[in-house]
Amino acid sequence: MGVWQRVNPNAEPYSGLPSICAQLFEAKARKGLTFGDIGKALNRDEVWVAAVFYGQAKMEPQDIVNLAQTLDIQQDAISAELGPHWWPRRGLGPMPPEDPVLYRLFEGVLVYGTAIKAVIHEKFGDGIQSMIDCKVTVDKKEDPKGDRVLLTFDGKFLKYAQW
Amino acid sequence: MGVWQRVNPNAEPYSGLPSICAQLFEAKARKGLTFGDIGKALNRDEVWVAAVFYGQAKMEPQDIVNLAQTLDIQQDAISAELGPHWWPRRGLGPMPPEDPVLYRLFEGVLVYGTAIKAVIHEKFGDGIQSMIDCKVTVDKKEDPKGDRVLLTFDGKFLKYAQW
Amino acid sequence: MGVWQRVNPNAEPYSGLPSICAQLFEAKARKGLTFGDIGKALNRDEVWVAAVFYGQAKMEPQDIVNLAQTLDIQQDAISAELGPHWWPRRGLGPMPPEDPVLYRLFEGVLVYGTAIKAVIHEKFGDGIQSMIDCKVTVDKKEDPKGDRVLLTFDGKFLKYAQW
Amino acid sequence: MGVWQRVNPNAEPYSGLPSICAQLFEAKARKGLTFGDIGKALNRDEVWVAAVFYGQAKMEPQDIVNLAQTLDIQQDAISAELGPHWWPRRGLGPMPPEDPVLYRLFEGVLVYGTAIKAVIHEKFGDGIQSMIDCKVTVDKKEDPKGDRVLLTFDGKFLKYAQW
Amino acid sequence: MGVWQRVNPNAEPYSGLPSICAQLFEAKARKGLTFGDIGKALNRDEVWVAAVFYGQAKMEPQDIVNLAQTLDIQQDAISAELGPHWWPRRGLGPMPPEDPVLYRLFEGVLVYGTAIKAVIHEKFGDGIQSMIDCKVTVDKKEDPKGDRVLLTFDGKFLKYAQW
Amino acid sequence: MGVWQRVNPNAEPYSGLPSICAQLFEAKARKGLTFGDIGKALNRDEVWVAAVFYGQAKMEPQDIVNLAQTLDIQQDAISAELGPHWWPRRGLGPMPPEDPVLYRLFEGVLVYGTAIKAVIHEKFGDGIQSMIDCKVTVDKKEDPKGDRVLLTFDGKFLKYAQW
Amino acid sequence: MGVWQRVNPNAEPYSGLPSICAQLFEAKARKGLTFGDIGKALNRDEVWVAAVFYGQAKMEPQDIVNLAQTLDIQQDAISAELGPHWWPRRGLGPMPPEDPVLYRLFEGVLVYGTAIKAVIHEKFGDGIQSMIDCKVTVDKKEDPKGDRVLLTFDGKFLKYAQW
Amino acid sequence: MGVWQRVNPNAEPYSGLPSICAQLFEAKARKGLTFGDIGKALNRDEVWVAAVFYGQAKMEPQDIVNLAQTLDIQQDAISAELGPHWWPRRGLGPMPPEDPVLYRLFEGVLVYGTAIKAVIHEKFGDGIQSMIDCKVTVDKKEDPKGDRVLLTFDGKFLKYAQW
Amino acid sequence: MGVWQRVNPNAEPYSGLPSICAQLFEAKARKGLTFGDIGKALNRDEVWVAAVFYGQAKMEPQDIVNLAQTLDIQQDAISAELGPHWWPRRGLGPMPPEDPVLYRLFEGVLVYGTAIKAVIHEKFGDGIQSMIDCKVTVDKKEDPKGDRVLLTFDGKFLKYAQW
Amino acid sequence: MGVWQRVNPNAEPYSGLPSICAQLFEAKARKGLTFGDIGKALNRDEVWVAAVFYGQAKMEPQDIVNLAQTLDIQQDAISAELGPHWWPRRGLGPMPPEDPVLYRLFEGVLVYGTAIKAVIHEKFGDGIQSMIDCKVTVDKKEDPKGDRVLLTFDGKFLKYAQW
Repeated sequence: MGVWQRVNPNAEPYSGLPSICAQLFEAKARKGLTFGDIGKALNRDEVWVAAVFYGQAKMEPQDIVNLAQTLDIQQDAISAELGPHWWPRRGLGPMPPEDPVLYRLFEGVLVYGTAIKAVIHEKFGDGIQSMIDCKVTVDKKEDPKGDRVLLTFDGKFLKYAQW
Repeated sequence: MGVWQRVNPNAEPYSGLPSICAQLFEAKARKGLTFGDIGKALNRDEVWVAAVFYGQAKMEPQDIVNLAQTLDIQQDAISAELGPHWWPRRGLGPMPPEDPVLYRLFEGVLVYGTAIKAVIHEKFGDGIQSMIDCKVTVDKKEDPKGDRVLLTFDGKFLKYAQW
Repeated sequence: MGVWQRVNPNAEPYSGLPSICAQLFEAKARKGLTFGDIGKALNRDEVWVAAVFYGQAKMEPQDIVNLAQTLDIQQDAISAELGPHWWPRRGLGPMPPEDPVLYRLFEGVLVYGTAIKAVIHEKFGDGIQSMIDCKVTVDKKEDPKGDRVLLTFDGKFLKYAQW
Repeated sequence: MGVWQRVNPNAEPYSGLPSICAQLFEAKARKGLTFGDIGKALNRDEVWVAAVFYGQAKMEPQDIVNLAQTLDIQQDAISAELGPHWWPRRGLGPMPPEDPVLYRLFEGVLVYGTAIKAVIHEKFGDGIQSMIDCKVTVDKKEDPKGDRVLLTFDGKFLKYAQW
Repeated sequence: MGVWQRVNPNAEPYSGLPSICAQLFEAKARKGLTFGDIGKALNRDEVWVAAVFYGQAKMEPQDIVNLAQTLDIQQDAISAELGPHWWPRRGLGPMPPEDPVLYRLFEGVLVYGTAIKAVIHEKFGDGIQSMIDCKVTVDKKEDPKGDRVLLTFDGKFLKYAQW
Repeated sequence: MGVWQRVNPNAEPYSGLPSICAQLFEAKARKGLTFGDIGKALNRDEVWVAAVFYGQAKMEPQDIVNLAQTLDIQQDAISAELGPHWWPRRGLGPMPPEDPVLYRLFEGVLVYGTAIKAVIHEKFGDGIQSMIDCKVTVDKKEDPKGDRVLLTFDGKFLKYAQW
Repeated sequence: MGVWQRVNPNAEPYSGLPSICAQLFEAKARKGLTFGDIGKALNRDEVWVAAVFYGQAKMEPQDIVNLAQTLDIQQDAISAELGPHWWPRRGLGPMPPEDPVLYRLFEGVLVYGTAIKAVIHEKFGDGIQSMIDCKVTVDKKEDPKGDRVLLTFDGKFLKYAQW
Repeated sequence: MGVWQRVNPNAEPYSGLPSICAQLFEAKARKGLTFGDIGKALNRDEVWVAAVFYGQAKMEPQDIVNLAQTLDIQQDAISAELGPHWWPRRGLGPMPPEDPVLYRLFEGVLVYGTAIKAVIHEKFGDGIQSMIDCKVTVDKKEDPKGDRVLLTFDGKFLKYAQW
Repeated sequence: MGVWQRVNPNAEPYSGLPSICAQLFEAKARKGLTFGDIGKALNRDEVWVAAVFYGQAKMEPQDIVNLAQTLDIQQDAISAELGPHWWPRRGLGPMPPEDPVLYRLFEGVLVYGTAIKAVIHEKFGDGIQSMIDCKVTVDKKEDPKGDRVLLTFDGKFLKYAQW
Repeated sequence: MGVWQRVNPNAEPYSGLPSICAQLFEAKARKGLTFGDIGKALNRDEVWVAAVFYGQAKMEPQDIVNLAQTLDIQQDAISAELGPHWWPRRGLGPMPPEDPVLYRLFEGVLVYGTAIKAVIHEKFGDGIQSMIDCKVTVDKKEDPKGDRVLLTFDGKFLKYAQW
């Protein structure tokens, strides 16, 4: 069973999102569910589900049906703000990020980005790893010296056009 | 066999690095080696080797021996600039990055960062994924609809101190 | 038929616009209309109509009449905020943009801008492509390898004064 | 016939490019060629050729052969700096851009970007116009009221992954 | 006769101004007056009057009397917020400006500023053109090839102290 | 007669300009000429001439002939760097500007820009004052209370397209 | 006697301050007092008193007693927000400042800062002028050529530690 | 007697100044002179003299004669770079400043700027303290609790024009 | 006994925090407690407790029980906003910081950061001082020449991975 | 015994420092000395010595004598650039810092700064911890779970003036 939870709808990041998002977070807490639990109910990955909660991904109509049922929220309330007519304004929070969890990802770009670029070019040619056709996952890798976070970006390689 | 290559030592990123780095790139091109090839010779991952070339990682003495041999460069020339007394000034290039390959990684932080943070907290608690005790790899995943880049960050979870 | 839709009038971009704009979006969704549909009713291009909704273009009085009729909104309510006395404050959202759709346009300037400038100069002389006397269109170009977006800027060439 | 031309290799943008680029510009001027002329010789579009000169696109080996011949430059000199081992560092010049030609493109993003995004979503769904698989052209449209620049971005639509 | 007009007091620039300013704009629209009309009634230039409306200039008591009468607003309501005890917080809107009208003025500084500085020095010596003891006017200059805006800054020359 | 003058070609703004520009400044000083003098010799306004010296305007071939003669510089040396193949990279120096002369112009945009925009709209409609088809002049207005700088921007009004 | 005055508590700088501050300004205007008058009543300098009003300095309990009496405000209302438990969050408004009065101070740092630093070092050694143990005053110096503002910073010299 | 001194002409701030400036600093050190000593020789204040050394103030011809004599430098060498044809590019170093001495001045603007503005307005009206017709001095005020720096800005009050 | 205190929940930093935080501060003041007092009641360090109040650290359930009891606040009210489902968004306030207390810490990084980095590398090798597994304390060190603040960061050394 | 070492004098941070600094680093490496070793020879703390090497602290004449002797460098060469006439330009490298070691210190300010400020105020009153009269040390604290870095700032408390 979950706990009663309240978020400040006037504070970031909730103030910048469709207002239903604050309610999604509160319902999730009230139900005591993790993103992993909700992901299973929607047959989606937990990172993608979290992206939906933060207004960074767009649900299909069936996802809305499933989410409404899972969280005991009126389906119409979700549809009215996150339905077919809504399109994500992607990008969230200040850059450079200040929260240490986010900053570490940013630091990965600062420190290893050029090396990653060099290896992508050598293995694939002149192009990029798509962040649009890309699946992001977070896994736990147990380790006696301390558990490890396994963060994976699985994105299509896109070759530069020449014309 | 490789081709003769010249880099502009006064242009970024070479102008900001120890001056031996431009020679490492030229030797690598002359030898026709990839970072993967050099990685095998050093018994290191190719991304880590590329990070060394861009001044973002520090070699052990044995790495310098191996690199000198692999590239046919004087070991002393490498040691004088990248040896035990040298410490990387990590962080390379403008932020936000302008090169599309790097920008896509940055966009991953912008779009999915908060979702990743949420899932890390749910799976591990209040802490971060280390970018220091972290191994970064780039793999090619063949796919008939277009090959995919598999980019992985395998970093230790660090719990916040409470005191 | 359309769906009931609600936008957060306190969140970007609605909070920065005349307050009628949020109602235009909600009416459009309720009616189930696309910008293309509204464009036909106003005898205007759909991109221009979308620019009106986002406070980036100014309607003629007849446009307001047509828009009010198309959306079943009181004409006076629109006129009071977007009528003859109103002038657009153009420019919308953070720069560099964070949303990937917008960022890609920005990346076009970063990567191809100097090349475009060079070709404009060679074909037209010392001057610029006007973004004021400019028509912007978005077309769908079907392609078995994946449909393509055809984005066109048709702007008058303006020669630099010499005096 | 062309004129003798000298560029300042220590000034932007040449100082940030492979040093051969300054020579490409000087040879082009000496030969009196436009990017259109060189494009015909390489069987490439003139904008793409200009992008190569500014270090923003990567030539195939055959392009280098053709370019060397067209400009009467040693093929090896071009290959050494822009050959198979070289990968573009894309992104050029300060942002926001200061040059008015570039700024107008940037202004297009500021003013019409959100409208373009809305129409792309309505016509194609949740995704983006690729700037990687994208062809950019500049055409002259004669007009008695003043010639017009027709700038076109023809880019593949990429749908967001859901996972 | 004018039209009924409403401004969003929570949107820029009104949200950053004394709250009476929004009412001044609404009254001006209701009365169907231009800044030129109001300027005549106050015996002031129209640009200065517009600056007052945007909180960028300070009225004398007599100006407040005249403005209240011209707009049919209570004189006390204006005095309470813009009276003798109020001092302008000058500077309005983001820099660099995003609105194209404002940006063009900014571009004038970017492109011609150094040249203007050089000519001021040659004609006047080491000093500046005051923007405090400065009168700004906007005139319409009819021209068969297209009317022209004549923007004039008439500012006192201030010589640098030497001590 | 003028004085011998030397500029630091490695310091701003000379380091960012075609290298001939430093020589133009030195020749102008050696000849003891003002921009006004050179303007008369070229039959151009002095501000435009200064803009040429700072790489912000493009000369016609005849201007180059006249300038070479006026300054006793080889015409070919000027043509090689500022001739038909050269196009200005407009925009000069940091923004916000730090030099007080330039900053005052910038302050004019900050303080009076919105008022100027409002008056332009009221007098001309929805459009802008062109900074491309624009003539900039600096005049001295003698005044017993202190001479005044009369800075004028005479630019074509450009109406926004509707499509 | 003073005038009735209203400040916009949602506009800068009031929105960023303890909410009592807006009332202090209104009471001061209602009473028709200057900062100099209040300074005399508190036996403090007027600049310090103004700093208190803008949330930049901390009053002693006796100052609160005196201020409440001088402005006819409940002492508890002031104490509740600016009392012993409150600590100033110093720093106010955007930087670089846009208001010309503030900008001129900033310009003093830009233009004369390095010279001031050099003279401080020569007269005092390696250290700084404290802005903590510092008294700031503004005096009027009458002058037939125009009155002068005498702004003085009287701050303790602090020598750098060596350890 | 002074010591031999060398400055790095490629490092800030010397690299951004006329190249003679580095020599002025070296000569001053070789002679063992302070800015106060040079100020006496030129009959100028020491802060103004330091401003000249940092390229922030313009000398009269007689100042150049005196400076050349005082430092035993060829007068022509100074005139060639800092003579009548040279105009200062004022503004020096990054903002916000990083050096603690400069930062403290900047902090004075951040913390006390709005209070100073308020008192200037109350004592003088709507206008500013000129930083152009302004004399800056640094004095030592001995104090048993620690000597104090007395920094004074003595600038003309400029009233805002109304037109 | 403490005093009644009110904070402005719409002003920074409270507006960016969970709304319960403003109440924590008010209760602390009402009770007349210091962070040191609360730290003793929670068996935690005072800096860590202050970090909790500013939303920068996460309490264990027992901490919430203790805090509710210490401040006489409903435990559920705290849990609802700062309970197990809440994760800190770390990072608070503008950077560079404007408040002098915070700026001095920032200045420590600016001035001594590189030296600290060098000594950490020499004493520990290639790695960092963790700011996650880190305990921060503030102690008072009495000194006849003026008391001293002893600020200590006690953080685990983390060695860079090589892979 | 040490190794031969070369630093790139044109790369940061050496390019921004007096040119002797690069030689100090090379001599230190050649001698195989740590900052701790040099600190002992100078009777100074190692962090302070490192600050000297990075141009962030000023040596007394005796320090120069000792340093010259310790590193076998000509004392005059050091004096010429870092002697009595030289004053540090403090502040080094970009902010926010990109190197992870430096960033972690910066993160300490972001995350714990406000808490530290609160505790300093409670323990000392309204004032700051001086970063001028401040001693910084780095110690190694051995710990079976991983050694810890003990970073200490020991700075004088400075009370705010009231006047």
